[in-house]
Amino acid sequence: MAERVVLAYSGGLDTSCILKWLQEQGYEVIAFIADVGQRDDFEELRRRALATGAVKVHVQDLREEFVTDFIYPAIAGNAVYENRYLLGTSLARPLIARRQVEIALDERAPYVAHGATGKGNDQVRFELAYWALAPQIKVIAPWKTRTFLDRFQGRSDLIRFAAEHKIPVTATAEKPYSTDENLMHKSYESGVLEDPLHAPDEGMFTETRSPQAAPDRPLRLALLFKDAIPMRVENLDDGTVKERPLELFEYLNVVGGEHAIGRVDMVENRFVGIKSRGVYETPGGTILHRALRDLEGIAMDREVLHLRDSLAPRFAELIYNGFWWSPEMDFLRAAFAQAQRIIDGRVLVDLYKGNVIIRGRESPSSLYDKQLSSMDVEGGYNQIDAAGFIKLNALRLRAHKLILRDPRTR
Amino acid sequence: MAERVVLAYSGGLDTSCILKWLQEQGYEVIAFIADVGQRDDFEELRRRALATGAVKVHVQDLREEFVTDFIYPAIAGNAVYENRYLLGTSLARPLIARRQVEIALDERAPYVAHGATGKGNDQVRFELAYWALAPQIKVIAPWKTRTFLDRFQGRSDLIRFAAEHKIPVTATAEKPYSTDENLMHKSYESGVLEDPLHAPDEGMFTETRSPQAAPDRPLRLALLFKDAIPMRVENLDDGTVKERPLELFEYLNVVGGEHAIGRVDMVENRFVGIKSRGVYETPGGTILHRALRDLEGIAMDREVLHLRDSLAPRFAELIYNGFWWSPEMDFLRAAFAQAQRIIDGRVLVDLYKGNVIIRGRESPSSLYDKQLSSMDVEGGYNQIDAAGFIKLNALRLRAHKLILRDPRTR
Amino acid sequence: MAERVVLAYSGGLDTSCILKWLQEQGYEVIAFIADVGQRDDFEELRRRALATGAVKVHVQDLREEFVTDFIYPAIAGNAVYENRYLLGTSLARPLIARRQVEIALDERAPYVAHGATGKGNDQVRFELAYWALAPQIKVIAPWKTRTFLDRFQGRSDLIRFAAEHKIPVTATAEKPYSTDENLMHKSYESGVLEDPLHAPDEGMFTETRSPQAAPDRPLRLALLFKDAIPMRVENLDDGTVKERPLELFEYLNVVGGEHAIGRVDMVENRFVGIKSRGVYETPGGTILHRALRDLEGIAMDREVLHLRDSLAPRFAELIYNGFWWSPEMDFLRAAFAQAQRIIDGRVLVDLYKGNVIIRGRESPSSLYDKQLSSMDVEGGYNQIDAAGFIKLNALRLRAHKLILRDPRTR
Amino acid sequence: MAERVVLAYSGGLDTSCILKWLQEQGYEVIAFIADVGQRDDFEELRRRALATGAVKVHVQDLREEFVTDFIYPAIAGNAVYENRYLLGTSLARPLIARRQVEIALDERAPYVAHGATGKGNDQVRFELAYWALAPQIKVIAPWKTRTFLDRFQGRSDLIRFAAEHKIPVTATAEKPYSTDENLMHKSYESGVLEDPLHAPDEGMFTETRSPQAAPDRPLRLALLFKDAIPMRVENLDDGTVKERPLELFEYLNVVGGEHAIGRVDMVENRFVGIKSRGVYETPGGTILHRALRDLEGIAMDREVLHLRDSLAPRFAELIYNGFWWSPEMDFLRAAFAQAQRIIDGRVLVDLYKGNVIIRGRESPSSLYDKQLSSMDVEGGYNQIDAAGFIKLNALRLRAHKLILRDPRTR
Repeated sequence: MAERVVLAYSGGLDTSCILKWLQEQGYEVIAFIADVGQRDDFEELRRRALATGAVKVHVQDLREEFVTDFIYPAIAGNAVYENRYLLGTSLARPLIARRQVEIALDERAPYVAHGATGKGNDQVRFELAYWALAPQIKVIAPWKTRTFLDRFQGRSDLIRFAAEHKIPVTATAEKPYSTDENLMHKSYESGVLEDPLHAPDEGMFTETRSPQAAPDRPLRLALLFKDAIPMRVENLDDGTVKERPLELFEYLNVVGGEHAIGRVDMVENRFVGIKSRGVYETPGGTILHRALRDLEGIAMDREVLHLRDSLAPRFAELIYNGFWWSPEMDFLRAAFAQAQRIIDGRVLVDLYKGNVIIRGRESPSSLYDKQLSSMDVEGGYNQIDAAGFIKLNALRLRAHKLILRDPRTR
Repeated sequence: MAERVVLAYSGGLDTSCILKWLQEQGYEVIAFIADVGQRDDFEELRRRALATGAVKVHVQDLREEFVTDFIYPAIAGNAVYENRYLLGTSLARPLIARRQVEIALDERAPYVAHGATGKGNDQVRFELAYWALAPQIKVIAPWKTRTFLDRFQGRSDLIRFAAEHKIPVTATAEKPYSTDENLMHKSYESGVLEDPLHAPDEGMFTETRSPQAAPDRPLRLALLFKDAIPMRVENLDDGTVKERPLELFEYLNVVGGEHAIGRVDMVENRFVGIKSRGVYETPGGTILHRALRDLEGIAMDREVLHLRDSLAPRFAELIYNGFWWSPEMDFLRAAFAQAQRIIDGRVLVDLYKGNVIIRGRESPSSLYDKQLSSMDVEGGYNQIDAAGFIKLNALRLRAHKLILRDPRTR
Repeated sequence: MAERVVLAYSGGLDTSCILKWLQEQGYEVIAFIADVGQRDDFEELRRRALATGAVKVHVQDLREEFVTDFIYPAIAGNAVYENRYLLGTSLARPLIARRQVEIALDERAPYVAHGATGKGNDQVRFELAYWALAPQIKVIAPWKTRTFLDRFQGRSDLIRFAAEHKIPVTATAEKPYSTDENLMHKSYESGVLEDPLHAPDEGMFTETRSPQAAPDRPLRLALLFKDAIPMRVENLDDGTVKERPLELFEYLNVVGGEHAIGRVDMVENRFVGIKSRGVYETPGGTILHRALRDLEGIAMDREVLHLRDSLAPRFAELIYNGFWWSPEMDFLRAAFAQAQRIIDGRVLVDLYKGNVIIRGRESPSSLYDKQLSSMDVEGGYNQIDAAGFIKLNALRLRAHKLILRDPRTR
Repeated sequence: MAERVVLAYSGGLDTSCILKWLQEQGYEVIAFIADVGQRDDFEELRRRALATGAVKVHVQDLREEFVTDFIYPAIAGNAVYENRYLLGTSLARPLIARRQVEIALDERAPYVAHGATGKGNDQVRFELAYWALAPQIKVIAPWKTRTFLDRFQGRSDLIRFAAEHKIPVTATAEKPYSTDENLMHKSYESGVLEDPLHAPDEGMFTETRSPQAAPDRPLRLALLFKDAIPMRVENLDDGTVKERPLELFEYLNVVGGEHAIGRVDMVENRFVGIKSRGVYETPGGTILHRALRDLEGIAMDREVLHLRDSLAPRFAELIYNGFWWSPEMDFLRAAFAQAQRIIDGRVLVDLYKGNVIIRGRESPSSLYDKQLSSMDVEGGYNQIDAAGFIKLNALRLRAHKLILRDPRTR
């Protein structure tokens, strides 16, 4: 009897061919289509998968979960890879992989498969997640499989194979770069972008206007957070209010995109040891990141902030490298959850032609207010205390200098 | 005979009164005026100091040194305090303090004095620098001295004292906030800014236009770095070229200010334990910081970048807290200098209404180019290798999950 | 009416004189005596405090709490200051301070007082704890109070004052060093120990035999941990078993002391900026620390271990510097608690003349066992996978070297 | 014409068979024998290699370099992997690999080969070093080569092959564990040691006596360091003095071994994702490590020490994982070299039955002495200063507590 494999299927050329190829290898293929916010006709994808020979198709709407369990925690932890990338793709992978593994277990399929290439980050994110969640699962990665690679040496081989097997793929012209799209962002890489000196054409961007094309009037927003999680967005110009996570985030994408927020163009370091150039559009995520960061300024203790900041690059690196499901991530998240307690309050921002301009912030757990009020009453800050503070901090500097001057040490 | 004290004198109300008060306490006062790029009439300041009773005045142009020895190394090390503040004031203090100490030693003055208050950061930066450089020096900080504090309880006491002693101070209306200005930035704090929800009036800003008021056409620049140090700026629109450090930096301030680059509004954490709200304008520094960061993406090794990034917040904290002259700073700077070697290349940026938009980058020491060229020839990247790479990375995740599932461990 | 102050009273010369001096200053003094395992006659101390004028005396046995809430968590987090000091004194201070503050609140005393000097660590630990737990409390620290310092310039002034006021102090000869003693350790500093080249006399040590004087036969122990907390100690030679925390820890002190375990002699860095020489005896704590560390080797995930190890020095520093009650400590402890989950198992050790010799370990949550068994079955480790793993790890090293060789970059 | 390969040859069964097997594959084999202090008859090894078909043999004495360029820097940087392993094997690998690559370049051999297995650490260390130093070099690792693995499935296949080809191997009985030996240490792993509960037999150890068998009288040593590097060892009992690096280190091995210093038994984490049990004897390295650590206490600035300590585990991890030749190692070493400046002085230690007992230390660059002398004169430490120091440190703790109590934040 044929063994079952659950394939992460996107309906594109690659996974369509893989769906058929897996059948040729003797597998029964269950297609899994994850809705993480990409613009797709999921019912059409379902039909296409069945037409390509899938024995079953699972279409799953993971958007709400994506916002609450992945995007919000990442933003709350200031996850920014190499100081700029907000990890839109990286965050969707562990979510997709988890559902795929759940389906495999439910369907008693010993195999999972994906269409990610052998040079990229996504293969790592998928496979580490599969194995972290289901250690005995078997993984089929055609782009790292000799027989597949021998057969498909380029895009034209795939197109020919699709034609031969009457695989229903949309006959789109190849784009001059590849993209990934979900609720959080759209990314662009390879193709013409491989030249790091080549600026992308304005026509490439679909999620954000250019700063030049954005409205000439700022949009005024108020963002409310509780425990570092977005609770409410209010458009102060027209009174629109959004509170439910998916709605709130989608709304920020719309207004952020309108105002040209969240474009990034960078050369980054992949886990597999390669540098790669990526261009990203992350409108909503960028607004939330900037606003929360500002709120932390007023509501987070200095030493907690500095400790958290020293670990945030590691948090981002774990997400980027595919270690969302890992014991070290649990370790970091336990600390971060502690840091996020009572990071409450409201931040006012203007969106204007690519800028997220902080206009003010207030917090019921402000450590700034308390400072100036309650403690001053009790003589909390006596300027003369600073003399002793500085003197003791200077002690070891003075000792060090005396040593350096000492003829015995020169 | 009266003992000598070298006073860091700005010509403002505070240090003018302190100059006189020190004489009353029996000191002979040498005034030291540092030109770090603030807009002042230094000859007028000299006259004023003499008129107020200084026995001698030293006016020193420290601008070139400020750029080469403080601003450039800080930017090269990605020094950003609490993710936003580029440390304009913090960087000038150790430079001023060093010169002040040198003058004190030359003039055989056992004392140095400054007019910074007891609640702020600058007192710490001055005093730590004094003692780190001259361990036996004695420091007079009137704002932490009981007799001074008893006499001067507010601004009106100072004004009265100035009038009584015919101290020549400019009769300006008190501003609704206090400022500090140098080549790198202008900062604003206290007064009306103490309400963190109060957005500053547009009229406050003197170094940058608002994004709304900035030109509607982007300015195209090319920035050249060598060992992470700016070597050349070219205006690609009009062909202007600047290479000498002071000129280059001043030019970036001008064009950056024109295009609304480098405003920050934040609540930050002072070393003395207080949160404080600061607003900054740092046009040139912001451009350089963003451009260099981008160049690092292509030219810095991944692990060096990540290690450096894990230490950069500490580097910024040391600068902010006043430990520029310290053995731990020497420790960090030794490592950072190593990281900065052959961070060479050119970054193209557009300045547009508050945005520094990266348009491309190229580097003779690019690790991105090499990757794709030389090594591929020798089979540098074989996609199948990634299978083993991921499998070994997954090993411990699988073992961990198996343990968690094991009934003995639940 | 006189205001009340709760004094941390030890019955020694200093706090006895302070008790009286506080009365002279017009306070009503409540003495607080904490039993943290020091060898004292607490009823005698109570009588002495009353005889010296205390209006009330609280004697509190904090030993059990000390073990479970301070010593065990510190050991579980691998808290070792500057690689050697196990923090015996540092850990007792936040416990004593917390109870003292609780008594002050109960007794409606606006003041707390302590007898720690102005050069040491303990003043910091006491005062930071007081304020962290009761922000409005007022602190009297006589050794930092001008009037007290003017009156008591040395030990002889205290002795004279005690005699004049008929304060009952034990007429012991002054020891050539000062000590602190509790359940976890005994410490020695100052006096003859101030010469860092002077080795302490063997006669100084009271908690441990010297290695030379220890038995010639090893003692065999088995230590059982659950979630990194000691659950059971078994003497494999005579079958003695201890499980309750206080008993277990006291037992390890006895056998550890017998076998010369846990002496440390070091120069350390105080928070107040001074280097100081300390000698410590920590028999039980040393055994637990070494055994747990060994167990972690087999039961803790590599990346969790390395992350935890990168933070453990900070954890120790916070304890040493007096920040037990702080938000940054809560941050670290949340992560550490996560790391300690299912660190379960048994470690066999021999105690022999100063050595804690690991003889073996076993764990139901061993990641070592799982590794070799379950996963090999499923082809968990294929040697050939290592080729890809190494190749990808080498990629960036090769690119880096190629750049260094390139004439353009030299 | 046959292509040349330089093989790291040890004369053992594995590399002897590999030498022959490589010839069968059509290579011309140059044998490279590195003397890093293992007890071998190198001339006999040379003859054996030639007899097995090597076209050339290079025997190289690398001992002096091993001490000065690898062991001393590692000790100076406090390199200890997972808190216990002093990295004896890890440190020899990059040295051996460098020379092997140099020979390959000299001999125009495009290949290097080694006999390390696919499960261990050494394969990684060799191969990363090869590629870091010579990016285009080709590596043959038979234990990760399908054809070799198919032919040699166990030790008996190797023995049969050796017999068939008359390869001269010493007919020793297989040991119940495998070992690696060099100047710095001897290591033991696998075989009977795979059971982590099994204590090694006393008979296994060849470099150290057991504590029980060690002399009953302590040996007194004085160790002199300059810039954290050992300069001189003096036996205070018999007056023996050693200064030259190799002699000094060998002498410490002898006396350390005699006194049972430096045994470690641990479960550690390999880079390839496996936990493994290792037993080590590192007598001389242990003495130097402990003594230097003590000297740092008196001569290294606190913040430098703490920063260095936060990076030392990473330094050790890089060495363990094979990244000695890497840009991130250069980054760390630049900082560490700075930290090691003027870590000068003398440490007195007793060796006694497994213990390295610190008896005292003195340093011309002591920060401890200066503290108490020069600065006190100028009023360096005023106890009352500590009041302000603590108060400012307490400020944010108080603010935090006030917030936690506030009903709005609960």
